[in-house]
Amino acid sequence: MSASPIYLGVIGVGGVGTAFLSQLARLPNAPKLVLLARSSQTLLAPTPAYSPAIPAADWTTASAGASLTKTGALPADEIAAYLASAPGRAILVDNTSDINLARQYPTFLKKGISIVTPNKKGFSDDLSLWKDIFASASEGKALVYHESTVGAGLPVLSTLKDLVATGDEVTRIEGVFSGTLSFLFNTFAPASGSSDAKWSDVVAQAKELGYTEPDPRDDLNGMDVARKLTILARLAGLEVSRPDSFPIESLIPSELTTLPSSADGIAEFMKRLPEFDSQMTSIKENAEKEGKVVRYVGSIDVASKDVKVGLQSFSKDSAIAGLKGSDNIISFYTKRYGSNPLIVQGAGAGGEVTAMGVLSDLIKVVQRLQ
Amino acid sequence: MSASPIYLGVIGVGGVGTAFLSQLARLPNAPKLVLLARSSQTLLAPTPAYSPAIPAADWTTASAGASLTKTGALPADEIAAYLASAPGRAILVDNTSDINLARQYPTFLKKGISIVTPNKKGFSDDLSLWKDIFASASEGKALVYHESTVGAGLPVLSTLKDLVATGDEVTRIEGVFSGTLSFLFNTFAPASGSSDAKWSDVVAQAKELGYTEPDPRDDLNGMDVARKLTILARLAGLEVSRPDSFPIESLIPSELTTLPSSADGIAEFMKRLPEFDSQMTSIKENAEKEGKVVRYVGSIDVASKDVKVGLQSFSKDSAIAGLKGSDNIISFYTKRYGSNPLIVQGAGAGGEVTAMGVLSDLIKVVQRLQ
Repeated sequence: MSASPIYLGVIGVGGVGTAFLSQLARLPNAPKLVLLARSSQTLLAPTPAYSPAIPAADWTTASAGASLTKTGALPADEIAAYLASAPGRAILVDNTSDINLARQYPTFLKKGISIVTPNKKGFSDDLSLWKDIFASASEGKALVYHESTVGAGLPVLSTLKDLVATGDEVTRIEGVFSGTLSFLFNTFAPASGSSDAKWSDVVAQAKELGYTEPDPRDDLNGMDVARKLTILARLAGLEVSRPDSFPIESLIPSELTTLPSSADGIAEFMKRLPEFDSQMTSIKENAEKEGKVVRYVGSIDVASKDVKVGLQSFSKDSAIAGLKGSDNIISFYTKRYGSNPLIVQGAGAGGEVTAMGVLSDLIKVVQRLQ
Repeated sequence: MSASPIYLGVIGVGGVGTAFLSQLARLPNAPKLVLLARSSQTLLAPTPAYSPAIPAADWTTASAGASLTKTGALPADEIAAYLASAPGRAILVDNTSDINLARQYPTFLKKGISIVTPNKKGFSDDLSLWKDIFASASEGKALVYHESTVGAGLPVLSTLKDLVATGDEVTRIEGVFSGTLSFLFNTFAPASGSSDAKWSDVVAQAKELGYTEPDPRDDLNGMDVARKLTILARLAGLEVSRPDSFPIESLIPSELTTLPSSADGIAEFMKRLPEFDSQMTSIKENAEKEGKVVRYVGSIDVASKDVKVGLQSFSKDSAIAGLKGSDNIISFYTKRYGSNPLIVQGAGAGGEVTAMGVLSDLIKVVQRLQ
């Protein structure tokens, strides 16, 4: 509760990283930003004073001046050593999606450096890394907050943690966890009105709008959803060994999986996708015959330990069918909440809302460390 | 972050209080329960050791033994003095709905005792009390958590606080905030299918099921919803002076407001309510002519400072219209979330879920005090 100084290192200045720095710059009583790393350069507040701090809004200007230390990319253990030597508690914000950096979290945590991150890679990889992260946090008396790894800024993980911590029994978690796949199916098979759009046209439109990854197969393979499900299932108490250790229905036609991920390969994929439109149309029409719409969902049945990702049909008046745009929806079924689940819904992707989840975690970590 | 002992006082053993104590009893590393007060009796861990603690699950048995101190009801300042003298940080959990106790929060907070409560009365009364509570918390370096004052255990206030703290601009908050009124309208005017039930029959059924207050007029007057809106509006930055300082549409026919709140008065109210069924039927039918259903909602428009509580019509495919049972739904419209709001939905009343919100707040306060 005493206001001891807290030192902040930030890695990554992509979409989320840039939004985060701009939100951080407007935060009253923000921790001191003493390290800012991107792939090619690292800015540091000079030792031993760890001062002056890096201006979060103006780091590009400041990096041109003489008051900060500049180096190339630093290895994680050097960043950890720098932060651990600061004259107060330190926090690392990882705004990358780099699995190799995530593998170094235990190094930071054991040195007492708390981690705040939207990077889902580390928490959804081998179960051994998950265990190592939390054991290291305990050893270093450091904190790990990663709300934005699922549903961006939506209160998904905090809600699940509260349910579990207070002794509720979570029986089932179900939802739409990918903004991209939400958009594709809300457009391809809307719950109200109808659409004649071909599947391949909807994918092309989403790619055009920047809603998909550069290679749409990185969304269509379901792995992003599987990683989020892995995190939720682990927080609900299931020991999921890997993000590919349960059934994942890929929406990539098997004939097109082997095309390279080069620009040519992607172009070839988009060109050949229309060959498979009739398959998706028939899936859509089969659902419609039952008065339903098809959606790409993830679900966790806690009792049977059944985790899966794929297509499912939902009645048109269900909350999942009624989703708009690229929104996520997550339903928690628990003993206390009974037959009607606790539902969280809203934008689950985008730089600003993801950064908001990161900043909100950072505020909570600062409150706990002070 | 050090595990200093934390001392807990709890007031109230009604529905929420009992559920809370049973959840607390199963919490690992729970703070030491040293005071348990109900209207007629107070149990205390003997001074000066503040030991043995009161067994949360078994307090009735323990109160018959000789190891605890027993007194009658204690005034708030004596409870505050007892907790403030404990050899560590102290937390008061107020599980009552007593405005007089809420008026004493500043006394506790100034002495460094944190407050956790589902009691909405203090936070929705005069603005001067709201300001006094938070100024006193700041003065005493104590914390105030009151998630369950709105939407019970649903993550409503925490979400709003996160949006505000990270610099998002909340433009509008809208929702169904009363489980009782949710049930009444979901039954009277369902979005799918139809119902011929008369309004007075639906009210009688809800009363029978225990979904209303003993006097249903305490739900129908809209004041419970107005108090919740007052709290949300204040957290969103509006200086609402009183919970009755904005328009509240009462569902009590004006001819029946003056009936006494005695058992006879309530019986007379229920007997005469059918005289007004045609009014409610015509409201319902007017909405149906537009393909809509009527719901009792609260809304806050932040820019225009417009707060109101009352009936509104919603298209049948909207999330509000599709609500089930006695669920609450709360939509946050913000600058970052754009046209699709962040939505939280689920049971917003009931002993277990309310107690869960209180316990979850308690866990967070303990984490911050340690």
